[in-house]
Amino acid sequence: MEIAERIRLGFQRQRKGQVLVSQDDLCSSLLFILDGEVRINKKSDAHNYELNEWTSQPLVLQPESLFGLSTRYTRTFTTETAVHILKVNKDAVRDILFYYPTFRINFLNLLSMRVQLANRQLWRPAASDLPLRFVQFLSSRCLRPAGRKELRISMQTLADELLTTRLNVSQLLNSLAQEGLIELKRERIFVPSMEKLLMGKV
Amino acid sequence: MEIAERIRLGFQRQRKGQVLVSQDDLCSSLLFILDGEVRINKKSDAHNYELNEWTSQPLVLQPESLFGLSTRYTRTFTTETAVHILKVNKDAVRDILFYYPTFRINFLNLLSMRVQLANRQLWRPAASDLPLRFVQFLSSRCLRPAGRKELRISMQTLADELLTTRLNVSQLLNSLAQEGLIELKRERIFVPSMEKLLMGKV
Repeated sequence: MEIAERIRLGFQRQRKGQVLVSQDDLCSSLLFILDGEVRINKKSDAHNYELNEWTSQPLVLQPESLFGLSTRYTRTFTTETAVHILKVNKDAVRDILFYYPTFRINFLNLLSMRVQLANRQLWRPAASDLPLRFVQFLSSRCLRPAGRKELRISMQTLADELLTTRLNVSQLLNSLAQEGLIELKRERIFVPSMEKLLMGKV
Repeated sequence: MEIAERIRLGFQRQRKGQVLVSQDDLCSSLLFILDGEVRINKKSDAHNYELNEWTSQPLVLQPESLFGLSTRYTRTFTTETAVHILKVNKDAVRDILFYYPTFRINFLNLLSMRVQLANRQLWRPAASDLPLRFVQFLSSRCLRPAGRKELRISMQTLADELLTTRLNVSQLLNSLAQEGLIELKRERIFVPSMEKLLMGKV
């Protein structure tokens, strides 16, 4: 393969439980997860809550962090199983990969799609309905609107974020738990399937 | 200039009051405003409010609309003065302009920056303070957080969007008007300087 001849491709196998990149790390290469499962974690700016997502789909880690204003990762990626990764450093991406129309178009499509989706979310009407507001809070923070998620947050912080009372949040979460859409643990809200939560509440 | 030899560059002069592109138009070229003033309008999805922005800075119209999921403009751009524009069709952008590292890097930086800024906004903490909530509502919908803006919205729609009452919105707007940060007309909120409003309230 012509590309493989021109750039040193860093194929690696990583064991379970390895941190691939950390939130706030400088992004100096494009990292592809080829197979295996990863956990994606992000802490809020005030460090008062955090979100975990899991995915076993092939994935490129935050391609928008390679260029732009702030070339730092905004999430932490940890392996949940053994994974195969491919690492291409930034110079090679910029000088060689972009020479290939297919890569270039895929990269541009990916970034453009992320701008489009984010802007659609920013213009979304406010939900007066509390369950919908909770689902929007969660989905607008997810990298992908599918799979299982875990929100680590106190009742009071969630109440503040949803502009409501602690009592209302407590009732909301208990009702969602009874519907089987979430599972509640101490300061942890586990969503077995984001698809189901979205279908049930949007 | 080498680029100019290879692609047909569509330099044009447009009179005042011309619609350059409309919200929902298919984006089939990259359009640069080289000088002059344009008004940028966006209607909310439910068509219950709209936002106007004005800028006289050089500008490329929604480069994220050229690729991705939905290749349609999401805003309307109208000339407020005579302007000079440069139009490069999508094929030429894709096949020729991307051949030039400077163009490529600028384009990637621009898209990446927009993903980064939008994601920062999506993770912004909810403001319990109503003036700040209003400023966030406005700034998250602006293409640029500077210059003059006009929001055409009813008191009730704004109250719904800010999750508060019509009375609270009315008091908020009157107080901002007294501070000279906004000017009120019937169903229109005019912001002479978004910078000042942001400095005063964020």
